[in-house]
Amino acid sequence: MLAANPPMGWNSWDCYGASVDENTVRQNAAYMAEHLKPYGWEYIVVDIQWYQPTAKTHEYEPFAPLHMDANGRLYPAVNRFPSSADGAGFKPLADYVHSLGLKFGIHIMRGLPRMAAHNHLPIADSSLNCAQAALSQSVCQWNPDMYGLRCSEEIRGENPGRAYYASIFRLYAQWGVDFVKCDDIAREYPQCEKEIEIISEACRHCGRDIVLSLSPGPAPVERAEHLKAYANMWRITDDFWDQWDLLRKMFERAEKWCIHAGPGHWPDADMLPLGALRQDYSQDDWTHFTPDEQKTMMTLWCMMRSPLMLGCEMTKLDEPTLALITNRDVLDIEKTTYCGHPLYTTDTASLWIAPERCGNGLYVALFNLSDCALQGCVTEDSLERPVTRARELWTGQSCSGSLQAHIAPHGCCVWRIE
Amino acid sequence: MLAANPPMGWNSWDCYGASVDENTVRQNAAYMAEHLKPYGWEYIVVDIQWYQPTAKTHEYEPFAPLHMDANGRLYPAVNRFPSSADGAGFKPLADYVHSLGLKFGIHIMRGLPRMAAHNHLPIADSSLNCAQAALSQSVCQWNPDMYGLRCSEEIRGENPGRAYYASIFRLYAQWGVDFVKCDDIAREYPQCEKEIEIISEACRHCGRDIVLSLSPGPAPVERAEHLKAYANMWRITDDFWDQWDLLRKMFERAEKWCIHAGPGHWPDADMLPLGALRQDYSQDDWTHFTPDEQKTMMTLWCMMRSPLMLGCEMTKLDEPTLALITNRDVLDIEKTTYCGHPLYTTDTASLWIAPERCGNGLYVALFNLSDCALQGCVTEDSLERPVTRARELWTGQSCSGSLQAHIAPHGCCVWRIE
Amino acid sequence: MLAANPPMGWNSWDCYGASVDENTVRQNAAYMAEHLKPYGWEYIVVDIQWYQPTAKTHEYEPFAPLHMDANGRLYPAVNRFPSSADGAGFKPLADYVHSLGLKFGIHIMRGLPRMAAHNHLPIADSSLNCAQAALSQSVCQWNPDMYGLRCSEEIRGENPGRAYYASIFRLYAQWGVDFVKCDDIAREYPQCEKEIEIISEACRHCGRDIVLSLSPGPAPVERAEHLKAYANMWRITDDFWDQWDLLRKMFERAEKWCIHAGPGHWPDADMLPLGALRQDYSQDDWTHFTPDEQKTMMTLWCMMRSPLMLGCEMTKLDEPTLALITNRDVLDIEKTTYCGHPLYTTDTASLWIAPERCGNGLYVALFNLSDCALQGCVTEDSLERPVTRARELWTGQSCSGSLQAHIAPHGCCVWRIE
Amino acid sequence: MLAANPPMGWNSWDCYGASVDENTVRQNAAYMAEHLKPYGWEYIVVDIQWYQPTAKTHEYEPFAPLHMDANGRLYPAVNRFPSSADGAGFKPLADYVHSLGLKFGIHIMRGLPRMAAHNHLPIADSSLNCAQAALSQSVCQWNPDMYGLRCSEEIRGENPGRAYYASIFRLYAQWGVDFVKCDDIAREYPQCEKEIEIISEACRHCGRDIVLSLSPGPAPVERAEHLKAYANMWRITDDFWDQWDLLRKMFERAEKWCIHAGPGHWPDADMLPLGALRQDYSQDDWTHFTPDEQKTMMTLWCMMRSPLMLGCEMTKLDEPTLALITNRDVLDIEKTTYCGHPLYTTDTASLWIAPERCGNGLYVALFNLSDCALQGCVTEDSLERPVTRARELWTGQSCSGSLQAHIAPHGCCVWRIE
Repeated sequence: MLAANPPMGWNSWDCYGASVDENTVRQNAAYMAEHLKPYGWEYIVVDIQWYQPTAKTHEYEPFAPLHMDANGRLYPAVNRFPSSADGAGFKPLADYVHSLGLKFGIHIMRGLPRMAAHNHLPIADSSLNCAQAALSQSVCQWNPDMYGLRCSEEIRGENPGRAYYASIFRLYAQWGVDFVKCDDIAREYPQCEKEIEIISEACRHCGRDIVLSLSPGPAPVERAEHLKAYANMWRITDDFWDQWDLLRKMFERAEKWCIHAGPGHWPDADMLPLGALRQDYSQDDWTHFTPDEQKTMMTLWCMMRSPLMLGCEMTKLDEPTLALITNRDVLDIEKTTYCGHPLYTTDTASLWIAPERCGNGLYVALFNLSDCALQGCVTEDSLERPVTRARELWTGQSCSGSLQAHIAPHGCCVWRIE
Repeated sequence: MLAANPPMGWNSWDCYGASVDENTVRQNAAYMAEHLKPYGWEYIVVDIQWYQPTAKTHEYEPFAPLHMDANGRLYPAVNRFPSSADGAGFKPLADYVHSLGLKFGIHIMRGLPRMAAHNHLPIADSSLNCAQAALSQSVCQWNPDMYGLRCSEEIRGENPGRAYYASIFRLYAQWGVDFVKCDDIAREYPQCEKEIEIISEACRHCGRDIVLSLSPGPAPVERAEHLKAYANMWRITDDFWDQWDLLRKMFERAEKWCIHAGPGHWPDADMLPLGALRQDYSQDDWTHFTPDEQKTMMTLWCMMRSPLMLGCEMTKLDEPTLALITNRDVLDIEKTTYCGHPLYTTDTASLWIAPERCGNGLYVALFNLSDCALQGCVTEDSLERPVTRARELWTGQSCSGSLQAHIAPHGCCVWRIE
Repeated sequence: MLAANPPMGWNSWDCYGASVDENTVRQNAAYMAEHLKPYGWEYIVVDIQWYQPTAKTHEYEPFAPLHMDANGRLYPAVNRFPSSADGAGFKPLADYVHSLGLKFGIHIMRGLPRMAAHNHLPIADSSLNCAQAALSQSVCQWNPDMYGLRCSEEIRGENPGRAYYASIFRLYAQWGVDFVKCDDIAREYPQCEKEIEIISEACRHCGRDIVLSLSPGPAPVERAEHLKAYANMWRITDDFWDQWDLLRKMFERAEKWCIHAGPGHWPDADMLPLGALRQDYSQDDWTHFTPDEQKTMMTLWCMMRSPLMLGCEMTKLDEPTLALITNRDVLDIEKTTYCGHPLYTTDTASLWIAPERCGNGLYVALFNLSDCALQGCVTEDSLERPVTRARELWTGQSCSGSLQAHIAPHGCCVWRIE
Repeated sequence: MLAANPPMGWNSWDCYGASVDENTVRQNAAYMAEHLKPYGWEYIVVDIQWYQPTAKTHEYEPFAPLHMDANGRLYPAVNRFPSSADGAGFKPLADYVHSLGLKFGIHIMRGLPRMAAHNHLPIADSSLNCAQAALSQSVCQWNPDMYGLRCSEEIRGENPGRAYYASIFRLYAQWGVDFVKCDDIAREYPQCEKEIEIISEACRHCGRDIVLSLSPGPAPVERAEHLKAYANMWRITDDFWDQWDLLRKMFERAEKWCIHAGPGHWPDADMLPLGALRQDYSQDDWTHFTPDEQKTMMTLWCMMRSPLMLGCEMTKLDEPTLALITNRDVLDIEKTTYCGHPLYTTDTASLWIAPERCGNGLYVALFNLSDCALQGCVTEDSLERPVTRARELWTGQSCSGSLQAHIAPHGCCVWRIE
């Protein structure tokens, strides 16, 4: 089963924005293969604008030339991804990533390049052209490159949106892509509902297992069953960054979405802004999260079984951050539990539980949401079961009976009850 | 712990509306003690208007005289509850219910009787009077009897709402009341937030364990933590009756509320309209739910751990209904699980799971929400665990591997996986 | 025709709140007859709570005793209105007011006294009683005395609301009432729509010409035609007091309502808080409006043809205020124009015009809405007519061609163009 | 003063949609000059898509080639407007129209052609290019051709939107354009507020008097003062066609907007769908309005002083329609009145008045909005003036006292009272 557990990997956005290049991807893939693969980290994802020769930093450039083939399909900018020369596309880079035992992913925008429509380029293996598939008024509010597609009507017996999306996913399968993050689509209900279905269908029929991830958030929780049916993961908030207020608000989203996490379909709390970030702006931009906040983030993501995508330049990881993302006890929560949910969330604290699926264990996480230290206590009554033996997973300390802890501001404890 | 499990019992409303009398209560209590107590059924609750001598059927009579004492506290109408004569109140009836090994509950409306305010009656054990405690514009939209109370300000150092509510809960403690269903308050956020707190406080300080239940629904899920802090159960929908569309819609409410069920605080899906109902209108008004719908209702209420309150005239219970409400395997779900929630709910089906707290069991319920028969299947993949052995709890049939079932329209299956 | 021009008079509220008494009414009536009648001022209106013996200041007293007859009709409190003793009601006071050549008005609340319903008092000349006519949940949000009436259904062939309202208007006709200000009704659309119709019908059929005024505002402009059909005047804002921000906002309301002013039906900008106000609180509480603001208020009310109701203790009027309210040139605008409306309203200024109905005159008012002095100019182009001769009505200065003026902050000029 | 009275003319849309050609324009201009000019009709306006060589019927063609110069300014398609060849633009056609004593207008879309942005064409007389001026996400929801402009920020000291709009209005001034109908802008508040200001400024500074008309509607009445400040006319509804329900609804719009009509700024009820329409689809598509409805439309437009723009193929005008649009008495209302507004509008009828500005006349129009004949009556009381002598303007009949009329369904009478 595809995405039987929440995907874990690395994405270039938090570090390199629109300007990531092949070298960077290779060095991060190599690092992951050597240091993180044993812990389950496996996806290497190239984020937005890989087809734009002039891309710089996190900003978008309107009316920039984009590298595409004669069928209006975007190709990596050769100046940034040299191995893609001569029409090779991402195949050489994907091959390299696969050679490390990892998986390769790319970002795409909903739709097709505007100039492919204006130039009436033919769609590969179709009688239709890009001008027929594109909707002139369906444009992204924050990115200037694409037109959305006509997915709800046919022209001469063919669905133009399906024709185009099938043409690109066939190409991605040839390249060896394992993961597609499709953007400008997840919070765009109800307009994009049909387009999501067509993309999902193109993905599932392309001849290769490709995880489909939808962005940006917040996706509407009212459409949870639609998302579960057509995507493997989807964002539940707008872009997440290293600010406490955003992490604080994630508890509300997590509460709404937690019951929808399950094999093959995962609500996604977005990338983990840990370690060295924003490398396109500065060499020294380390995460603004305190160590306690980082622990809280990792714990919440695991308790809700969110996908885990690192946002940092991995080769700059320090020891504490490395320890944080390679704690097997905590990462196990992602793979062995179900039904994770909050028992309560107040202004100052949140208590989550997640039962083990096989075995009788129970994970309990107590978060301090306040700006003051918290003397926390979780009674056996509130858990409705005795606590014969428990172990805190970040410190390794054992206890029994009520779970008691002194928790720093914005910090947390997480126990495994046997 | 009070209400450590979801309360189970009987309430007079579905059968007798505003006109229930002592005889009826006694005969139903006797029946419960003899036939249902072993299965956990224990509360006998007298619903609205017990203080109105002229009450008939389910309708309210504006400006009717209400029986009250010199302190504006309502007393049972002696013509309907003869044992309450001479100021005895509900004590004799409560004593009788207790003598059967059961618990006794009453319904109250938020506020105090309007005439107690107009007559400026003094509040018991207080320097204030009912005119000071009542808010002249705080009236119920569907019942004509009461004024809501002034709970957010003090008069001469005393909170008038607290003074009155304390006076009635002290009386209820003397009577031996074990359960109070307070009405016109649960969907009235944010106006009634403070009044809920004051009532809760009066209840907890009255000197007797009294379960506090809030009506009507829908209570706002955004205020879940407030409800969990101040009430033992609260309605999540408007009045529930024996109509499929209402049962169908309960799945949406149940999905929103399920994570908030826990010891001492239970989202309440309302009374079970089974068996002989509406006896004030007709002797022959049997539930309109089909047997399959009844099974679906019982199963959903148990999977979400809703309180269970019978609405029928129990002495008229037939064998199939009796079997339905005395299935120990199904009722065990209420007492032994946690984290019950839907894996999905589509237009045609809903799949719920609920893990056992102690032990490694898992309950799985598959509901057919459509009007056609459903050939259902639950894979081990979707449950994320192997199914070595499972038993369907309504039929007793065993199976292993995928759970498979032919389910009638509006019906369900519920398995226990060992 | 009743209210062929906008009514002009005095109302006791701004000065005396709920506590006005007979002496005060008589002294103000006498003053008006002597000093203001020649300028068109004629109504003397007794505002709210005249039936409450214990009323004081502007506050309402919940559950206070109200003076009523055996048919649930309110009567003046004899301690406050001695001439009403022995069941005379307001007749002696109305007779006195009429003897001065003036007209007499009273305030009523929508509905009937709550205790008349609780006591099931019979309605005069009807087979129904007050408990049948009252709606137990129809209560005013700011006054504790009344229940609204059942006007949309019949009981035994009789409309209970009509029965009660007919009974009180017949009484008012006997007393000699010329004006009724009915409260808790004008902003209460759509709930009160039918009740307005029934009250209007009772008023028109009571055997005496009674102007019907509806409060409080804002009445909804979407229901303008309904108001024009059933009332003679209605409030277009919430209570208006002597604050510049309220006066500033009246320009928006006036713009929306101006086209609905016409013979028999007048949008009402509320009482004029000029001179000595709030006499129940203090002997020295003079209007907080500056002289310029007072001029602006008078001018706007006249240009939009609002009714004019003085709110002050008239016997304390000083010379400047007296001049303000006895400027015949300005008051003529109320009686001789039509189609008054703004040409524009910006953040800093508003320009209104109002043509004479008979004759070729045009009134032009330029308001300075800013906190700075304004050098204003109105061109012939913008008026679409030549300005051969014009006269400013507050100063008497004449000019021709463009209208030019230096206007103080919050002040205005108003010209008559011949 | 520009547009001192509401503009009157002809527009090609209702007849020819996107496909009007030079021949058609010339023949209609010639007709107008000969038959309608004496009555005040003077504008000849070429509507949308004159720059698209492939345009047909009323539909838009996505990604069609548009005729533009090297500065991204649209030019007439030479195949449709032969006289525009060799870069002459509309000058020859405008010259012809002027030679007839008429005025020439064109339609434009907000923004610049998308391909001008993608091709980074330089803006005439500016250091900026079209890619810098265009906003990639600002696209029209119903037309595929343009990008809206960046008007709220500067690049190197220059406002890019202003640079482009100045460049096109200078060109229009050279061509001899007298009227610009700018589309995709009037109902687009608040997003387009700044763009409206920049366009208005470009129009006023281009060196020629050009009337600025904004479409489509409904423009928001809350922004009336902004519209009055920056445009000469603006649409108050979505496209108006020959359907009674649209005409019926215009009464509501007219009521809201009437007080904002004045010299230089006119709320626009849209083109008059009279006579031969939709000539691009069919040679025989005559207006669906009955003669009574046509009269009602003409009367309402005049009473509210809306601009009058014929939508028909004028050379096919029949006698009754010609009579309708050349009734001098009715057309005079547009030029001689002010303050026109409804006295009331009910489900069945609407009564409007409009006073003469110079002189003592009053126009009174009574509309029958119902599907039955109406026996109408307008009393002197309701007009607040005596009716010594009146004349109905469509029939010429005189009367005095009350105005009485039998009015056909959807018809009207309009009187001039001397």
